[in-house]
Amino acid sequence: MTHNHLKQYIREVPDFPKPGVNFYDITTLIQHPIGFKESVDLLTQYARTRDASVVAGIESRGFIFGAAIAHKLDLGLVTIRKPGKLPSATIAEEYELEYGTDKLEVHTDAITEGARVLLVDDLIATGGTLTASAKLIERLGGEVAGVAAVIGLPFLPFEHKLADYDVHYLFSYDSE
Amino acid sequence: MTHNHLKQYIREVPDFPKPGVNFYDITTLIQHPIGFKESVDLLTQYARTRDASVVAGIESRGFIFGAAIAHKLDLGLVTIRKPGKLPSATIAEEYELEYGTDKLEVHTDAITEGARVLLVDDLIATGGTLTASAKLIERLGGEVAGVAAVIGLPFLPFEHKLADYDVHYLFSYDSE
Repeated sequence: MTHNHLKQYIREVPDFPKPGVNFYDITTLIQHPIGFKESVDLLTQYARTRDASVVAGIESRGFIFGAAIAHKLDLGLVTIRKPGKLPSATIAEEYELEYGTDKLEVHTDAITEGARVLLVDDLIATGGTLTASAKLIERLGGEVAGVAAVIGLPFLPFEHKLADYDVHYLFSYDSE
Repeated sequence: MTHNHLKQYIREVPDFPKPGVNFYDITTLIQHPIGFKESVDLLTQYARTRDASVVAGIESRGFIFGAAIAHKLDLGLVTIRKPGKLPSATIAEEYELEYGTDKLEVHTDAITEGARVLLVDDLIATGGTLTASAKLIERLGGEVAGVAAVIGLPFLPFEHKLADYDVHYLFSYDSE
């Protein structure tokens, strides 16, 4: 599951969002017709193997890949969002940040009992937002059919956190 | 350009985000396989008539429709974002809110000279964010090939603001 040729479309931005962090910028991938097309097509192939019945994108870069995959598979897209963005009844899950905590929310009617949900984000780092998103889906009676991202950073401890799920990313980096 | 049958997928949420405002919630449209598919397909048909060479989605619901349209047309997607979200060199445009102002940013390398840009958002209300986005594109040498959204609220004064552009939405509401 390594598609290292796609790394040519990634821009590495040193010291963003803070000193010492190397940011893997996917905007250069998605604005390139081939980079975007190949990434979506490869993630869609993975989604097919997981027999997903719905796609869930995590705010906000997860919406980009999630929307394209969902449309390609003729599935619906559920949005998992920061607090206060979803207008109707929601449930929330907290997750830890380096300092403090944050929350993600989903509409209570977004997942139907027994739905097979493909969770999509651009990058898997610590796995905090994906774990919180998986819990939201499970609390609504859905099953996490798989977790899909463009980039994995396996030097961060997400593999332990997401050990219960089938995780797929297109390529990885060994360090920040 | 009216596809009123798609209104069945929209949830109207009274008093969101504040008392007196009726919020047109598109999450129920995008999580419905047929609602999402038809919306994207109709907007893509429009994009074809405008001969767009790149799609620009406005944070963050514009990413959803923009990504699906871009992928369907084998085009790249540019993201127009709130301040501080884009990691590399950007330009910014201010726009007015009911109280105060806000800004949108785009990467300076996102638009190439002469690009024909399809601007995408979920809903056109006052036209403030779309006008700011159009300015960003033009400052980088791009041309706004068209403005596409699912919902238009023509009782708000966007038609005047966006008079220089070709504007397309799938259906409209007459009042909040």
